[in-house]
Amino acid sequence: MASVKNAVGREIPTELEGRKLKPYRGLFKTYPRGRKAAGYFGRNKPGDRKLLESIDEAIHACKLKDGQTVSFHHHLRDGDYVVNMVMKAIAEHGLRDMVVAPSALFPCHEPLVELIDQGVIRSIEGSVNGPIGDAISHGRMKGLNILRSHGGRVRAIESGELKIDVAFVGAPTADAQGNMNALHGKSACGFLGYAVADSIFAKKVVAITDNLVDYPALPIQIAADYVDYVVSVPSIGDNQKIVSGTTKIATDPQKTGIAMAALDLMVHAGMVKDGMSYQAGAGGISLATTKFLGDYMKAHNIVAAWMDGGVTEHLIQIQRNGNCKAILNGQSFDVLSVTDMLTNPNHVPITPNYYANPWNKGALVNILDTVVLGGTEADIDFNINVNTHSDGRLLHGIGGHQDTAAGAKLSIMMMPVFRKTNAIIRDRVTTVSAPHHSVDAIVTDQGIAVNPARKDLLKKLRGSPVKLVDIKELRDIAYAEAGKPEEPHYLDRIVSAVQFRDGTYLDVIRQVKE
Amino acid sequence: MASVKNAVGREIPTELEGRKLKPYRGLFKTYPRGRKAAGYFGRNKPGDRKLLESIDEAIHACKLKDGQTVSFHHHLRDGDYVVNMVMKAIAEHGLRDMVVAPSALFPCHEPLVELIDQGVIRSIEGSVNGPIGDAISHGRMKGLNILRSHGGRVRAIESGELKIDVAFVGAPTADAQGNMNALHGKSACGFLGYAVADSIFAKKVVAITDNLVDYPALPIQIAADYVDYVVSVPSIGDNQKIVSGTTKIATDPQKTGIAMAALDLMVHAGMVKDGMSYQAGAGGISLATTKFLGDYMKAHNIVAAWMDGGVTEHLIQIQRNGNCKAILNGQSFDVLSVTDMLTNPNHVPITPNYYANPWNKGALVNILDTVVLGGTEADIDFNINVNTHSDGRLLHGIGGHQDTAAGAKLSIMMMPVFRKTNAIIRDRVTTVSAPHHSVDAIVTDQGIAVNPARKDLLKKLRGSPVKLVDIKELRDIAYAEAGKPEEPHYLDRIVSAVQFRDGTYLDVIRQVKE
Repeated sequence: MASVKNAVGREIPTELEGRKLKPYRGLFKTYPRGRKAAGYFGRNKPGDRKLLESIDEAIHACKLKDGQTVSFHHHLRDGDYVVNMVMKAIAEHGLRDMVVAPSALFPCHEPLVELIDQGVIRSIEGSVNGPIGDAISHGRMKGLNILRSHGGRVRAIESGELKIDVAFVGAPTADAQGNMNALHGKSACGFLGYAVADSIFAKKVVAITDNLVDYPALPIQIAADYVDYVVSVPSIGDNQKIVSGTTKIATDPQKTGIAMAALDLMVHAGMVKDGMSYQAGAGGISLATTKFLGDYMKAHNIVAAWMDGGVTEHLIQIQRNGNCKAILNGQSFDVLSVTDMLTNPNHVPITPNYYANPWNKGALVNILDTVVLGGTEADIDFNINVNTHSDGRLLHGIGGHQDTAAGAKLSIMMMPVFRKTNAIIRDRVTTVSAPHHSVDAIVTDQGIAVNPARKDLLKKLRGSPVKLVDIKELRDIAYAEAGKPEEPHYLDRIVSAVQFRDGTYLDVIRQVKE
Repeated sequence: MASVKNAVGREIPTELEGRKLKPYRGLFKTYPRGRKAAGYFGRNKPGDRKLLESIDEAIHACKLKDGQTVSFHHHLRDGDYVVNMVMKAIAEHGLRDMVVAPSALFPCHEPLVELIDQGVIRSIEGSVNGPIGDAISHGRMKGLNILRSHGGRVRAIESGELKIDVAFVGAPTADAQGNMNALHGKSACGFLGYAVADSIFAKKVVAITDNLVDYPALPIQIAADYVDYVVSVPSIGDNQKIVSGTTKIATDPQKTGIAMAALDLMVHAGMVKDGMSYQAGAGGISLATTKFLGDYMKAHNIVAAWMDGGVTEHLIQIQRNGNCKAILNGQSFDVLSVTDMLTNPNHVPITPNYYANPWNKGALVNILDTVVLGGTEADIDFNINVNTHSDGRLLHGIGGHQDTAAGAKLSIMMMPVFRKTNAIIRDRVTTVSAPHHSVDAIVTDQGIAVNPARKDLLKKLRGSPVKLVDIKELRDIAYAEAGKPEEPHYLDRIVSAVQFRDGTYLDVIRQVKE
């Protein structure tokens, strides 16, 4: 298999399953020529009816065929019922070899594994998590899976790299013309931003709702002029489960210590001041950092221009304290962040295009001051792994990690130096999910390492109380305490490829040996 | 010149100035094949700056060239300063033969006439009004002008028929990244809906604001990810002038009598009931009808599902009385309708794509119950003219007239039988702006004529107190009182073509003889 070494030193095959892969070249190096993909016209007349009786009828109406691509959004996170419901109907329809393009999957989607084994699902483009990723790692998926960040996904849709045949949009509220929102209804989850690009570019768009209301369903988050069909079902999900797994705040001393250290770094790097901006990732340590940052801002009367995210009660509390002017909501990580948008004009939803697409006229991440993020591993080159565990299994998606790391003035990665018998800081990450060019600092329980490429930051911190350590010292501690990591046992077969947000490839993931 | 007769009996040249013209074939007969046009990628990195010093600098940055197309929106109506300001800068830049693509023009844009004479402007695609239309009628414009409805304009942009090189968007509020809204600032005019398609499909997008605020400008009506440059100017317009000309309510007895008769027709046609929908045009009689409808609904405790428009205080009053659940705002016709949107979650903006594009997945007009509209003339075939006066001069745009007439279950045209010495109801309209297939009834000061093609409506009205007259009787009255109309004196040269919303051609307009 011909391959080339990319800008983080990983070998990228030039071609995989008929797909030509371009190697990653650097943060802002790959731009498109020409124009975006084009959307599809409709053909609607007075008297036409969009409301169908069942998902099966919608599959039929969309003329869905073997091998086509269906997409989903993940605003209901681990409480989503739509993906399983639709894929079951697709299976019952007798379709095979489908490409599933979700903005993310969660442990609740484990029933897809059976459809993977049956050949109903041929590959996944976008994001995987937990049991689906594990099944992929064990070679149970027939086709190649492509992992993309949130910005990378919308770029792939807008550029035509990812062609969606039918977008199924779970809608907490909809009307019979297809206007949708996620602010009202028993399954309210905030916004439908991840489905916006899908609804613009998919051939057909189906709204699936458990709260069909009289026209017009307000506010309009996805508009009727982009929707072909509407299906009413008893339930699209359980919105109590949008707080789940990665979105619970850390409380143990090791993690809160890391969070405090990250805040300390932000402060002494000059990033905590009036007019600042900030984003936290979904992980427990990130949430703890947000909480500590809020306390600090309150104590020092600092007012941020804006914060974005994954919005939680912690961000809302900062705003309610008067320490943040605006919240830009890419998704809601708890129910408070849903209800707050109902009445707060300074807490507004943003699409992933707005937030993270590297090929638009200006993504929010490009003006972001600080982002705090997590990772499963980091290496002495400052590359970060968020996708695989150290045994090689693909268990997590990328989310907005790559996007914010690339754009933010200060990107902070937070993790312990080792976990039990596993060295987290190591010579080489199992998988490169975020390239070292985008990583400014790694904050651990044993000290903070700043990327030597960030000479300006190192200069700024000189003489400050922030004690820096060499990343290799952190690795040495990890190896001393947890043992030198063993290379995972792989087969040759590549089961998944990790894209950078610009469509080039950072790494590949191989099938694990049983 | 080869020509074919279209479905309203007008001769349409098969080709004009290199443009192939398809004749109008009927209301919902012409649909596209294939896909929409494609938007343009951006190339934005951290640290890039969008804020420029002047409009001239923006023209330079956009690399605007001779013969290219620039677009504008008309939410500031007769109070707009942006069109004149930008076109003056384009002239000073030495550019020539520009195509100007406004969603509408107003008398305030008279300074463009000089630029037409100088050859800076070669043609207008979209809409004209008053002095510009008059100049076109007198042959002063070099190129062919294309008139489109609101739905037709967005269809033309989405389909790539109208290619915009640079969209200049007057923004009552913007930030340095290009987020815009029209709800705040001294020039607040409600919404920027007419510029939404422009911002998605134009090669370059320039925000021009007189209220540059800190990021993020909220709410986001046009988002930073679609904006290339931002220019701050002292003033973009006078929002007190959005109530102007056509948007003042009628008070004289002849006109209010027509409005009362239209309400009577609506009532007896069964269109005034709980769950109804309604739109009024911008004309004085339409506004009076809205007021009377509101009084009737209040007296009879009727609650509409929604009303849309051109929103005025009259529509808002109906909602405040509890007689209308939701207002869908295509544009604001007065300042109250701007401020109301700030706090009223059931009064929301809609784009012209949502409202009227015939080629999307369902325009609002397709589910509209009743629309009341005006016209400069109507003929015994039930064709309506809104563009030209009876002397042949092109003085008005189409607005949403064609779109709503085509979609609504009941389209009512309201006008006097004659005006002074001019027969309004006549054998043949000077220009066909809305085809008879879309016109259900003509309400005049001398009685109501129902289109004989609407057998269902005629049946429904049989036995009701609504007295119907034959349209030919109305014409006879007109001719008896005002004299038989003379054909305008034209030269051979076609100066403008009137499109139907689907891109086919309804009529052409010739240069008038001096």
